[in-house]
Amino acid sequence: MKTESVATSQELFISTEAMLAHWQGHRNLTRRTIELFPEDKLFDYSIGGMRPFAQLVMEMIDIALPGVEGLASGKWEKVEEFDHTKSMPSTKAGLLELWDKVTKVIDETWPRITSERFQQVEVAFGQYENSNYATLLYFVDNEIHHRGQGYVYLRSLGIEPPFFWER
Amino acid sequence: MKTESVATSQELFISTEAMLAHWQGHRNLTRRTIELFPEDKLFDYSIGGMRPFAQLVMEMIDIALPGVEGLASGKWEKVEEFDHTKSMPSTKAGLLELWDKVTKVIDETWPRITSERFQQVEVAFGQYENSNYATLLYFVDNEIHHRGQGYVYLRSLGIEPPFFWER
Repeated sequence: MKTESVATSQELFISTEAMLAHWQGHRNLTRRTIELFPEDKLFDYSIGGMRPFAQLVMEMIDIALPGVEGLASGKWEKVEEFDHTKSMPSTKAGLLELWDKVTKVIDETWPRITSERFQQVEVAFGQYENSNYATLLYFVDNEIHHRGQGYVYLRSLGIEPPFFWER
Repeated sequence: MKTESVATSQELFISTEAMLAHWQGHRNLTRRTIELFPEDKLFDYSIGGMRPFAQLVMEMIDIALPGVEGLASGKWEKVEEFDHTKSMPSTKAGLLELWDKVTKVIDETWPRITSERFQQVEVAFGQYENSNYATLLYFVDNEIHHRGQGYVYLRSLGIEPPFFWER
């Protein structure tokens, strides 16, 4: 009851439709960042003890795929600890193929997530309590954050990353 | 006319009020990232020819301060090229002081930016044409992107960055 009355008095910053386009724009940029990595560096290059970019990408995938389903259905997989190495493809082509599969699932699932769903507070993945819009923003922010780290890996390898503003 | 009719049929993803809290949460995290840098490394440490973190922070400030005013008023400073070194404080304390000033200006200016303003298309800084909500998201995304790079600098210096989820 309370959630609904708050929701109706809220001033729109961005619509659900525009937010999907915004997220997929970022995912497109991340895809092009993956493509720029040399095959071996994608899986083994690291700075300061951080994870290789493939593992960061796998984290994005492991969040986005069950995450978008949780946002739509309210049924969240309980995750004790994400292990992003278990299901990780061993080649760049395999990683990109998985990435594209997730892109499709997001597009197909998104229309099921209503504005009301985004305003609800839930415990994402059985442990992160937040408004669903904040949970989705966390997915996107986490992707931007880790992709920015991928940019440093690329630069330190002498490779120019994609333009940040091209989506 | 068209903008208005589109706006009224849009489904809310996030409200203007919640978006301010989201942005200031990120800015709080960036502030704590600045604090963790040793004084000298903040201004001169670099990987792969990238800018030191102080210059990246100065870019965030140079975007946010005139940016929030542009979003409120529709009057955009025409910027040919941002030079983020010109007005940059030379100490960490000075940079943090400027950061806090911007935080205050954002809080004070935000209530003047209506939902309708965010849906309008404008040419930000005289050269970037976009919906104003997309322009604001660009400010935030750019901050997350560069802060993520600051995290790599910190890690490579053996310093643990702040938890990404603490805002």
